[in-house]
Amino acid sequence: MLREITGFSNPLVKDARALRDKKARRETGRFLAEGLRILTEGLEAGFAPIQLWRTEASADHPLVKALERAAGETLVTSPDILGKLSGKDNPGQVLGVYAEFATPLAELDRSAADIWLVAQAMRDPGNLGTTMRTGDAVGAGGVILIDDCADPFSVEAVRASMGAIFTQKVVRTNWAEFIAWLRDGPGQLVGTSLNTDVDYQAASYAAPTFVLTGNESQGLPESYEADCDLLVKMPMRGKADSLNAAVATAVMAYEVLNQQRRVLVG
Amino acid sequence: MLREITGFSNPLVKDARALRDKKARRETGRFLAEGLRILTEGLEAGFAPIQLWRTEASADHPLVKALERAAGETLVTSPDILGKLSGKDNPGQVLGVYAEFATPLAELDRSAADIWLVAQAMRDPGNLGTTMRTGDAVGAGGVILIDDCADPFSVEAVRASMGAIFTQKVVRTNWAEFIAWLRDGPGQLVGTSLNTDVDYQAASYAAPTFVLTGNESQGLPESYEADCDLLVKMPMRGKADSLNAAVATAVMAYEVLNQQRRVLVG
Repeated sequence: MLREITGFSNPLVKDARALRDKKARRETGRFLAEGLRILTEGLEAGFAPIQLWRTEASADHPLVKALERAAGETLVTSPDILGKLSGKDNPGQVLGVYAEFATPLAELDRSAADIWLVAQAMRDPGNLGTTMRTGDAVGAGGVILIDDCADPFSVEAVRASMGAIFTQKVVRTNWAEFIAWLRDGPGQLVGTSLNTDVDYQAASYAAPTFVLTGNESQGLPESYEADCDLLVKMPMRGKADSLNAAVATAVMAYEVLNQQRRVLVG
Repeated sequence: MLREITGFSNPLVKDARALRDKKARRETGRFLAEGLRILTEGLEAGFAPIQLWRTEASADHPLVKALERAAGETLVTSPDILGKLSGKDNPGQVLGVYAEFATPLAELDRSAADIWLVAQAMRDPGNLGTTMRTGDAVGAGGVILIDDCADPFSVEAVRASMGAIFTQKVVRTNWAEFIAWLRDGPGQLVGTSLNTDVDYQAASYAAPTFVLTGNESQGLPESYEADCDLLVKMPMRGKADSLNAAVATAVMAYEVLNQQRRVLVG
């Protein structure tokens, strides 16, 4: 189905734009993703938009056509309205409205990957999206969100994920449930912390490795650290005592991947 | 000198708030830094604020007192006005106005550190600030900015740097000048790229190592890649072909540091 939307005051514009706010996402169970690259990533992962918004000019692009065939409906509109929906002066050619999804912890298949990322109270949506992107890069199975994290379906997180929102499993849970689930099967829980002398390169990681990163300003609660199998730290050679949370997660995740690669090679 | 500022319409409030915009920073040569941690980092590195803004309630904090002794003047104001200046609902206790600084390339002492970070057209201020923070963490000497990067003195970059804006040398230059300077002394230029088969862990890095990261969406220009001593890539196990630029820089920088640590150890 294809409809033309010409007015800023069209209720469909208002409804789609409202998805930039958490309240509307919660009420409708829908979220926004922008840009041909991210939407195509979604399609390849099996996610079709409920609504595809595109400009007239992009009608003939083969990737846009593929999205249009899969979409529930296609709304053709002006670059100005697309810009209003995306909140960017220079929007991409397409924007999609999707149904939110999340994997219940009980349904997570830990044997599907050797690395899992676990974020505790990661509050910055950019950090969270970047962490999903890193998860994709290291071949992680998904990102497990503990406590009060940023919304993985926010526009900022989806944008920073560069499509990994569609390829990484996303689980939202709390610490008690996570630990109960974790201990019901194999898995090494490794936390990055200031409260240890173990260098992250001196430790050995056992698959599946769960890489745990704490809140941007507080780090991990002490009681959570006590539940870890291992606490490690990165060398800090300057004045600061910590890395950006998404950076710390990535440096750790690549170390785990590198050890797994060495085991495979030799 | 200590003054009380009670009104939102006070011209000093207007002048300080204007520093959130690039135009005012360029015209005045001043920038804003927020939060006790970042300002104290600055003070320890020898940078005193021209203006220290603080609330009445923070008068007795020893770190605030130390900042006040060093500041050109201290302006005591309400949390609401401080919030307006910082653009955050929950501002820190202090905010400082500083004179911008930058190191001319010709004055950079490459022997001062074994790692230097080089960012080409890094457009996101959060990525740039995070990169400065990573530079501090790996003991880099500074961050060399090539072409049209985000402003390292923007509020977002300073915030993301967590104080590294004061501890890392910041150089702004262009490619031709950078390459001319680089080749006038020792230094290995390593670019991260998709156009190589060299795994970043299989390569050997020679100090001083210049870790080069390209633009967030375009990567490095081909002609810049041709000027590098070495191009390397990180393993990408998922659907995406690249990492966030600040993450890629950090993963590379830690690999270089780890090799240097191994040389020192054994």
